[in-house]
Amino acid sequence: MSDMLIAQSPKDLPDLDYVLSRSGLELMQDIVAGKIPGPPIGATLGFRPILAEEGKVVFEGTPEFKVLNPLGTVHGGWYGTILDSCMACAVQTKLKKGQIYTTLEYKINIIRPIPTGTTVHAIGKVHHAGRSTGIADGEIVGVEDGKLYATGSTTCIVMQGPKG
Amino acid sequence: MSDMLIAQSPKDLPDLDYVLSRSGLELMQDIVAGKIPGPPIGATLGFRPILAEEGKVVFEGTPEFKVLNPLGTVHGGWYGTILDSCMACAVQTKLKKGQIYTTLEYKINIIRPIPTGTTVHAIGKVHHAGRSTGIADGEIVGVEDGKLYATGSTTCIVMQGPKG
Amino acid sequence: MSDMLIAQSPKDLPDLDYVLSRSGLELMQDIVAGKIPGPPIGATLGFRPILAEEGKVVFEGTPEFKVLNPLGTVHGGWYGTILDSCMACAVQTKLKKGQIYTTLEYKINIIRPIPTGTTVHAIGKVHHAGRSTGIADGEIVGVEDGKLYATGSTTCIVMQGPKG
Amino acid sequence: MSDMLIAQSPKDLPDLDYVLSRSGLELMQDIVAGKIPGPPIGATLGFRPILAEEGKVVFEGTPEFKVLNPLGTVHGGWYGTILDSCMACAVQTKLKKGQIYTTLEYKINIIRPIPTGTTVHAIGKVHHAGRSTGIADGEIVGVEDGKLYATGSTTCIVMQGPKG
Repeated sequence: MSDMLIAQSPKDLPDLDYVLSRSGLELMQDIVAGKIPGPPIGATLGFRPILAEEGKVVFEGTPEFKVLNPLGTVHGGWYGTILDSCMACAVQTKLKKGQIYTTLEYKINIIRPIPTGTTVHAIGKVHHAGRSTGIADGEIVGVEDGKLYATGSTTCIVMQGPKG
Repeated sequence: MSDMLIAQSPKDLPDLDYVLSRSGLELMQDIVAGKIPGPPIGATLGFRPILAEEGKVVFEGTPEFKVLNPLGTVHGGWYGTILDSCMACAVQTKLKKGQIYTTLEYKINIIRPIPTGTTVHAIGKVHHAGRSTGIADGEIVGVEDGKLYATGSTTCIVMQGPKG
Repeated sequence: MSDMLIAQSPKDLPDLDYVLSRSGLELMQDIVAGKIPGPPIGATLGFRPILAEEGKVVFEGTPEFKVLNPLGTVHGGWYGTILDSCMACAVQTKLKKGQIYTTLEYKINIIRPIPTGTTVHAIGKVHHAGRSTGIADGEIVGVEDGKLYATGSTTCIVMQGPKG
Repeated sequence: MSDMLIAQSPKDLPDLDYVLSRSGLELMQDIVAGKIPGPPIGATLGFRPILAEEGKVVFEGTPEFKVLNPLGTVHGGWYGTILDSCMACAVQTKLKKGQIYTTLEYKINIIRPIPTGTTVHAIGKVHHAGRSTGIADGEIVGVEDGKLYATGSTTCIVMQGPKG
């Protein structure tokens, strides 16, 4: 993960002008390639995007001690956060320059516990991206064991940005 | 938040013997009172439980820079993690000694963005807790502005623990 | 249920001009009052709206033999359909003249089986209704026993109608 | 749809002894083959199972006038009911003799409206089926146009039947 920058303060995040000057796919590829810093949440929770193509985004992550719940297992919120990331970013890859979006809802099913320290891929795929909505599914799969750990679905709203 | 301990390593988390010796409500109240350390995820994401009574748990949290997404807003995963926490813990308050549980699924609706630095309460309430399942709802409300930021629902499975 | 008309063919349904000439609340109250025919789905599945006020709609229904699944219990789709109805219609009560809407997603939790022939109320309440989205929750409660049978949540998209 | 029987009264539904004497897959195949009557809900709403194999079930259906909402479009409940059917039945195909199950929750995303009279397939696939839970996804696809109309996910609880 040496190539990806992480934003250290608000000024490191891309400004709205930059965001609106790029298509959603270009913006994702900028982050994967390390051209612009990755978001703080990824560094905080231990995941980052490793692939972005039209309609599909893959995050790689490894849950460590700092994301455990009181019972010593990976918190359900970790599954939800990496799934929300890959699903929303999959929608993002379909946005044209000038469009913005945000997550309206997501749901996840947890199938089995991810052992602490296990590296997984969260794979988001778009089912629909129109002028006003985007819908995507996602799944968490173990990189070594190939097991399916969780699935998810999301609805995003797509809007014309302020300068669009 | 000075009274709550945070687990620094796996050995600080309650062991299974201790967990099974307490009812679910007692265990939550132990954490709120600082008798046992709070989980790492809360320290990582900036929230902790402040109230636990039968069928209801309240978490207080403040999203800071470290939980932002690439667009500089609070990541959808933060909403989901604090909601999952309050909803699952509300189910936990209905568990008898010897019972354990885990989250099968949760869904959240994000209603409006939480401004960075805003303190919110995530309030989880049980709708049903039986021998094999628990169902709860949750909402995120601003402490100062009283605004409803998000809602959620969850299904947990309840099981007899290994010594039950 | 003698006062409510049921549409018998497509020409009995309100046309778009009529729909756009009424606020969402007025349109719901027209149906409750029997001024315009109720939709076919309600007659098919055995439910109808009995109350519509701003932000809240109540449907009353009784699942009969024709909605059973192969195991002889009320099909999960019956819970979802009456919940979708009350939740979406609750969003509708917040729409201004000229606005239209549709359901993007809904989720339901089934808490306990509804015995065949039991009359229930499905109560939908709006959490948010803005220019572009509406979010509502719902619950199914037994009229006689007061039991909570199911809960739900939904996201609707709100749009300006063609003449708006 | 000439080969499938439809239950006309409660006595036509399979009794519990019969249900427990068959694996979940055998029971589904009995219905597809017309050996036992199909459930009332399918006749009421216009759909039936056409394929059942281990981990996958396909329903075919055509929404007609009787399932329309007040705006003259197919009610969201129709999408949910056929999806709940194919997803739950996919879980059922993994059950051993003596096991029973019920739906705890389902969620659906509606992607585009199904035109009245359009024949669709609802395809349910299991992600996980263990001793106590089953998780499946589903999608509605147009038979002629191949369009994706909706997606869904569900959680079922699996239990040992009374004679198990």
